[in-house]
Amino acid sequence: MAKQKTTVGIINNETLAYTAGRDVELDHALITVDCIGTAAHVTMLSKMPVQPKLITEDERKRVIEGLVEIIGQAQRNKFKIQLADQDVHLAVERTLTKKLGDLGKKIHTCRSRNDQVAVDLRLYAKEQLLQTLDEAAALAAALVSFGRKNKMVPMVGRTHMQPGMPSSVGLWATAHAESLLDDCVGLINAYELNDQCPLGSAASYGVPLPIDRQLTSDLLGFGRPTHNVLYANNGRGKMENLVLSAMSQVMLTLSRLSQDLMIFTMPEFDYFQLPAEFCTGSSIMPQKQNPDVCELMRAKASRVKAAELGVYDLIKGSPTGYNRDLQEAKELFMEGIATTRASLRIMTPMIQGTKANKKKLIAGFTPDVFATDRALELVGEGMPFRDAYHYIKENLHELENIDPTEAILLKTHMGAPLGLDWEYFKGRIAAVKETVREERKAFNRAVSKLLGVKYPLK
Amino acid sequence: MAKQKTTVGIINNETLAYTAGRDVELDHALITVDCIGTAAHVTMLSKMPVQPKLITEDERKRVIEGLVEIIGQAQRNKFKIQLADQDVHLAVERTLTKKLGDLGKKIHTCRSRNDQVAVDLRLYAKEQLLQTLDEAAALAAALVSFGRKNKMVPMVGRTHMQPGMPSSVGLWATAHAESLLDDCVGLINAYELNDQCPLGSAASYGVPLPIDRQLTSDLLGFGRPTHNVLYANNGRGKMENLVLSAMSQVMLTLSRLSQDLMIFTMPEFDYFQLPAEFCTGSSIMPQKQNPDVCELMRAKASRVKAAELGVYDLIKGSPTGYNRDLQEAKELFMEGIATTRASLRIMTPMIQGTKANKKKLIAGFTPDVFATDRALELVGEGMPFRDAYHYIKENLHELENIDPTEAILLKTHMGAPLGLDWEYFKGRIAAVKETVREERKAFNRAVSKLLGVKYPLK
Amino acid sequence: MAKQKTTVGIINNETLAYTAGRDVELDHALITVDCIGTAAHVTMLSKMPVQPKLITEDERKRVIEGLVEIIGQAQRNKFKIQLADQDVHLAVERTLTKKLGDLGKKIHTCRSRNDQVAVDLRLYAKEQLLQTLDEAAALAAALVSFGRKNKMVPMVGRTHMQPGMPSSVGLWATAHAESLLDDCVGLINAYELNDQCPLGSAASYGVPLPIDRQLTSDLLGFGRPTHNVLYANNGRGKMENLVLSAMSQVMLTLSRLSQDLMIFTMPEFDYFQLPAEFCTGSSIMPQKQNPDVCELMRAKASRVKAAELGVYDLIKGSPTGYNRDLQEAKELFMEGIATTRASLRIMTPMIQGTKANKKKLIAGFTPDVFATDRALELVGEGMPFRDAYHYIKENLHELENIDPTEAILLKTHMGAPLGLDWEYFKGRIAAVKETVREERKAFNRAVSKLLGVKYPLK
Amino acid sequence: MAKQKTTVGIINNETLAYTAGRDVELDHALITVDCIGTAAHVTMLSKMPVQPKLITEDERKRVIEGLVEIIGQAQRNKFKIQLADQDVHLAVERTLTKKLGDLGKKIHTCRSRNDQVAVDLRLYAKEQLLQTLDEAAALAAALVSFGRKNKMVPMVGRTHMQPGMPSSVGLWATAHAESLLDDCVGLINAYELNDQCPLGSAASYGVPLPIDRQLTSDLLGFGRPTHNVLYANNGRGKMENLVLSAMSQVMLTLSRLSQDLMIFTMPEFDYFQLPAEFCTGSSIMPQKQNPDVCELMRAKASRVKAAELGVYDLIKGSPTGYNRDLQEAKELFMEGIATTRASLRIMTPMIQGTKANKKKLIAGFTPDVFATDRALELVGEGMPFRDAYHYIKENLHELENIDPTEAILLKTHMGAPLGLDWEYFKGRIAAVKETVREERKAFNRAVSKLLGVKYPLK
Repeated sequence: MAKQKTTVGIINNETLAYTAGRDVELDHALITVDCIGTAAHVTMLSKMPVQPKLITEDERKRVIEGLVEIIGQAQRNKFKIQLADQDVHLAVERTLTKKLGDLGKKIHTCRSRNDQVAVDLRLYAKEQLLQTLDEAAALAAALVSFGRKNKMVPMVGRTHMQPGMPSSVGLWATAHAESLLDDCVGLINAYELNDQCPLGSAASYGVPLPIDRQLTSDLLGFGRPTHNVLYANNGRGKMENLVLSAMSQVMLTLSRLSQDLMIFTMPEFDYFQLPAEFCTGSSIMPQKQNPDVCELMRAKASRVKAAELGVYDLIKGSPTGYNRDLQEAKELFMEGIATTRASLRIMTPMIQGTKANKKKLIAGFTPDVFATDRALELVGEGMPFRDAYHYIKENLHELENIDPTEAILLKTHMGAPLGLDWEYFKGRIAAVKETVREERKAFNRAVSKLLGVKYPLK
Repeated sequence: MAKQKTTVGIINNETLAYTAGRDVELDHALITVDCIGTAAHVTMLSKMPVQPKLITEDERKRVIEGLVEIIGQAQRNKFKIQLADQDVHLAVERTLTKKLGDLGKKIHTCRSRNDQVAVDLRLYAKEQLLQTLDEAAALAAALVSFGRKNKMVPMVGRTHMQPGMPSSVGLWATAHAESLLDDCVGLINAYELNDQCPLGSAASYGVPLPIDRQLTSDLLGFGRPTHNVLYANNGRGKMENLVLSAMSQVMLTLSRLSQDLMIFTMPEFDYFQLPAEFCTGSSIMPQKQNPDVCELMRAKASRVKAAELGVYDLIKGSPTGYNRDLQEAKELFMEGIATTRASLRIMTPMIQGTKANKKKLIAGFTPDVFATDRALELVGEGMPFRDAYHYIKENLHELENIDPTEAILLKTHMGAPLGLDWEYFKGRIAAVKETVREERKAFNRAVSKLLGVKYPLK
Repeated sequence: MAKQKTTVGIINNETLAYTAGRDVELDHALITVDCIGTAAHVTMLSKMPVQPKLITEDERKRVIEGLVEIIGQAQRNKFKIQLADQDVHLAVERTLTKKLGDLGKKIHTCRSRNDQVAVDLRLYAKEQLLQTLDEAAALAAALVSFGRKNKMVPMVGRTHMQPGMPSSVGLWATAHAESLLDDCVGLINAYELNDQCPLGSAASYGVPLPIDRQLTSDLLGFGRPTHNVLYANNGRGKMENLVLSAMSQVMLTLSRLSQDLMIFTMPEFDYFQLPAEFCTGSSIMPQKQNPDVCELMRAKASRVKAAELGVYDLIKGSPTGYNRDLQEAKELFMEGIATTRASLRIMTPMIQGTKANKKKLIAGFTPDVFATDRALELVGEGMPFRDAYHYIKENLHELENIDPTEAILLKTHMGAPLGLDWEYFKGRIAAVKETVREERKAFNRAVSKLLGVKYPLK
Repeated sequence: MAKQKTTVGIINNETLAYTAGRDVELDHALITVDCIGTAAHVTMLSKMPVQPKLITEDERKRVIEGLVEIIGQAQRNKFKIQLADQDVHLAVERTLTKKLGDLGKKIHTCRSRNDQVAVDLRLYAKEQLLQTLDEAAALAAALVSFGRKNKMVPMVGRTHMQPGMPSSVGLWATAHAESLLDDCVGLINAYELNDQCPLGSAASYGVPLPIDRQLTSDLLGFGRPTHNVLYANNGRGKMENLVLSAMSQVMLTLSRLSQDLMIFTMPEFDYFQLPAEFCTGSSIMPQKQNPDVCELMRAKASRVKAAELGVYDLIKGSPTGYNRDLQEAKELFMEGIATTRASLRIMTPMIQGTKANKKKLIAGFTPDVFATDRALELVGEGMPFRDAYHYIKENLHELENIDPTEAILLKTHMGAPLGLDWEYFKGRIAAVKETVREERKAFNRAVSKLLGVKYPLK
């Protein structure tokens, strides 16, 4: 079997593939953050109060110049990680060493590869969480808009999948929107827990030189450094699990919205019409228009949860300090995020293009849907509720169909079909967007200062 | 097969057992919160601006009196839920109706059983999360105290389970403490997302009467009501999943601490001595002292995650509105919380009673553990890191044993063995406790006002 | 905190509860098999070619007499395991020692508690798997019978939840039956892998005395002993996982059958009518008849899978030899089996009582359901399929409604609506029942011989 | 956004990527089996007793010629699936149509794409399971060989990770081998359940033409056809779950073997020395040799189980008939199998190259390890076991170190260190290999006959 010499040992090709996994492919998403992390580390080294300086001010500038060049290449998809590099960190180090000679060999002083992975993934997670929040806010806005447009369109409210009470399309749509907005709270929590700089842990146990971890954290725009350096490493896997957990809450919301859309577009209901471009046909049945996107979204919720579970499992009962098991978290982590984001991005135009079929929605009402309202009417006339309930139950055949629009007009309390507060939704959506904007601005400001050029690069 | 008439239908006994599950047993934990929820609902009904009043002020007082009596019985374990009741809600309603006649039949006006389960579980979750936070803070304090006592005791730092670099017992213990403190942030996030009053959803679609959902929320001391009434119901399962997710992060921390303790108490290490009362013997091997509690804690982490997963799965792809599947969440939810809390409560005295065996910890050092430090020394003398690394790698046999205490004395930067900031830990622990105290005080104040008696009852 | 002296150490009560879990409660299901296991072990000891005999023939008889007495008590629910016993093994040993004095202390010779748990769980699993097979065969028979009765009743066949092609109730029902019959193959595989006697492993490493493991295995009616004694122990957890995996396949089938029933009993379909005793009402909506049993069955599938996963997780990466983590498998294992069996037992009468509403099933057909059949007709007339497909697709409006009964009459090939082979189903069901009968007979015969009394006891 | 016209609708590019997933990439593994499936289908069509023939004998030959050509290209990695094809089925159909004109359009008669996916995946699973069995047998052989070579090398047997009793390297290694051999039983069970031909289901509901499903099944070398055509489709997901479940049992065994290797190669044990090519170094610690492959194998067990769970979840509660969710199973399925197989292939040479360090293994013994043996010696002298146990427990300090080789010489019963039956292992391994050989031969024979050329192609 062919053998390959790598920085860290001699290994056969099958084993190399087994240990590297899809790192070389996945790491392309980390080139920019890896360079930014190195820029901060090198800047911190250059400020370290030792004589002689580990890195001089001039050396720092040259390294950063080299890093900015790589970032530029990465933005144009021109920077390639080789299989022999194994990962982004060695690819960047190799490139710098080629360009800068001995200087390139210095940049790994006082840090380990684990250190780099840790900071790269946290920077990556920060950006991804902000993107996810933006996309979730966009979908919430689409749902609220759809709900508002159809606020007076009646819809049978169901429990146990069976008809229950009069409801409205507005209530249905904004229920999913509010779910998403709560999911955003979870995403922001994950963002804040992730917003800690792990650099300075080295191989988990710190170094015998006076590195300035607060400085590195500030240079990178992190909220704060993690404290204990061993925890900086133990926190890996844990952080990925936390982020995926927040993602899987989003997918939960999407899976239920999808399920509703699939049920309510069955011809027996025909409540909604999905835009044709999100449906596909059959290779054997010429008449079909299938809600494939909804089915896949329901399915992908399982996959994101399975990814979360996979990560949890990697670290449950894992001894202290870095263990290679963690590497397996990367693919699950990145794909879980990518799946969630793609789902949000696809659901938004799908909702925007969905039409409510008012006629069919109204036709769905049968007299028994009004049973509870009628019982509560009797209560309003003075009968205890349990008696009214039993009276109606025994006289179901007497119920008559009421205009469902009239029925929902009576539900005006907070959060009921006619009690939906559109400002409430608007405010929560705006708050999410504002958080994203502020965090992004702060990060870009810090990186621009660090690199000495406006970031993101043009 | 025997049949039984229940409020909601005729059903055979096996089916009753299948549908009721362990509700009757589990619901004993919900008696008090169920009464509090009813007290708020009835108070709100009594304020409703309709004529005639659904509930008069006098009726309200009598209902609350009845509820306070039940709460008192529950505190003394005297209130029993019968199998025929099926659950706590019907047990309380039956008791009130027996005592108050027709008045008891009125209390279900404008709300459904789902409404009640939803508010009960949220009140339950609030209290449980506060208890968990208290217990997590106590364990963090025990770990910090253990770490501080042993801050100068050297310990081989490991990666890949193999010896890596000089570290300290102080670093090891506080790494787990910091992990727990981050878990507390997650618990508080779950607390805040849970702190929304779902009452007023009725069967998910609101009611045609002017209920005041903000008032009910305030009476119960909730942070705010959920808005959309359908989401109030769709939020079930989701909330349980979120809480269990926060719990499983705690269990992750405990599982790793347990794993470390198991490894480091193997006689080949003998770094720590666990208190005898947390170990057990063997029925066939007379000499054994096994770390059973650690093993079980590692195992229970799997169970809590499996519980979380079970709940997720119940609602993934679940159509809008209440589905009975949700009932299956209750046992997983309650047991997941109980397991986490018991684990915290048992780990705390175990850590308090654990002894570090300094002699063995020092004996664990071999010359190669100092390799990195030696390479960094060469860096301090001006050699590029990669060259120093290769130089040491090729001359490993020349490494000499250094006094490990000297080695950790050199690691003084933030979060390193000698750079641990004890005030940092103290501050974070105090903040958790303060949050618990404030939240608990606010809740007790609200309930005392609602019931007209000091709560908790004496 | 109160302390308690147990056979294996002094431990406080909270820790005792934590380590014992629900063992005392769950172990009541193991009393009989524990006694049978001990009877075999003691019989083997009495045959061991050592002098003096470890157990004399007379002693063997007295022990077995004592065990038969306990089995009798257990059958009448009179044998109680105390909390101080911790588990069934110590309870039985204590009882025997009380009755037989020193002789009772001898029965633990050459075996450990792990040995006992291992054999008890395998005997338990054997019996439970046979019961499950019986119950699965009964449900398959009910589905086949329902299908046969309704073999000519047309039903719209769906893909993507959308109408697809003409099908029949017979096809629908027997699809679920065949799924169950394949699940039975999996259950039998689990049965066979489980049918290995683990006794003689002691604490995983064998004993320095000439025990006869083949004899013990034969006495207990096992297919064969496991070979390697360490594997006898490592096989724990693995076996439970395997059995739960087979159970979760059954639940998968049930969850899909339940989902179908829920969809097709929505009033928009009204294809089937479930027996009223499997439905329940609502506490607020007087008109409701909800398919709660179906919902719970769908949900319980999640729980059984979560249980399987929990067990897997306990042993993944677990070091060789017994680890206490395994204890956590017991509850998951027993409850997973119990849930599956209850689900089968409840679904059977539910299917038996379900009615197909032929009128509604026929009314569900719309012209487009015949599109593929019409395309294939064109193919029969010589048009290439892809052209026929596109022709129909562009002329969907021309499709006319056909008598759906006529449509299914054309589907006569193997396994199609009119090509169902009722003997095939009958044969597979009979084969399952025959396996159960044979295995049970062989086991009872072995145990009767071992105990010297007819087993099961009257 | 760019749009693309596909056979089944117009869809934008992001949605196309979302719905196609990694199909285009993954489907390259299915080209050969897809062609074989089509060959059988077309052959069956050519035999169908209708006039005019749907496919003439001459047409059949031309189609098969085209298919053989594609198979040849696929074997040389020359057949490429385009993004616009969406999947292998359309790619093959397109290629044939280009070559054969109208004839290419006929091959989809009486079958759907789901039909094709179903048969492709079952053929793929058959081959993969045979490969896995081969590889598992090879690893079992390596473990048995390692065990046999070291059968007299003593090793401390552990429970709860603590020293327990005298054991041997031979016992340790063959425990893992026996575990693998039981896993092979599970793989064969999955093989048999999978060995059913699903073709003829069309879109799940059969076709109104006299297709011969038994013939197609025979042509493809399947054990039998599935019966009910709807189950042929409902069986999807279920089959993948079953196969992954068997794979995850293998990974469980590997994860535990890996964990043992990691513990026993810590310098505190140094029992085993792993071959250097399976270890890697550290980027910061020059002295390190880390057992990365073992760590990754432990981790990958989590991933395979997560994949299994993901698949289960896709179909739990899924309504009857094809649902697009199933597509998400493909990646999980293929990657779960690939991971398991790679793990087996890598572990085999690793075990072959591992050395047992006899000196260190013996040095691991301390007097207390002999406590149980000493107690059993007292039993041999007539003391009841419980008394002997307590006597030793109270006199542990008196235990003396015994030559551990002597100790294991006493354990001669079946499956104990000196009672291992090497023929038993040899026989089971040979039986697995024989099964593989026979099944593969039968398949190749059937396909060769079907294609009219020797298969596999040269």
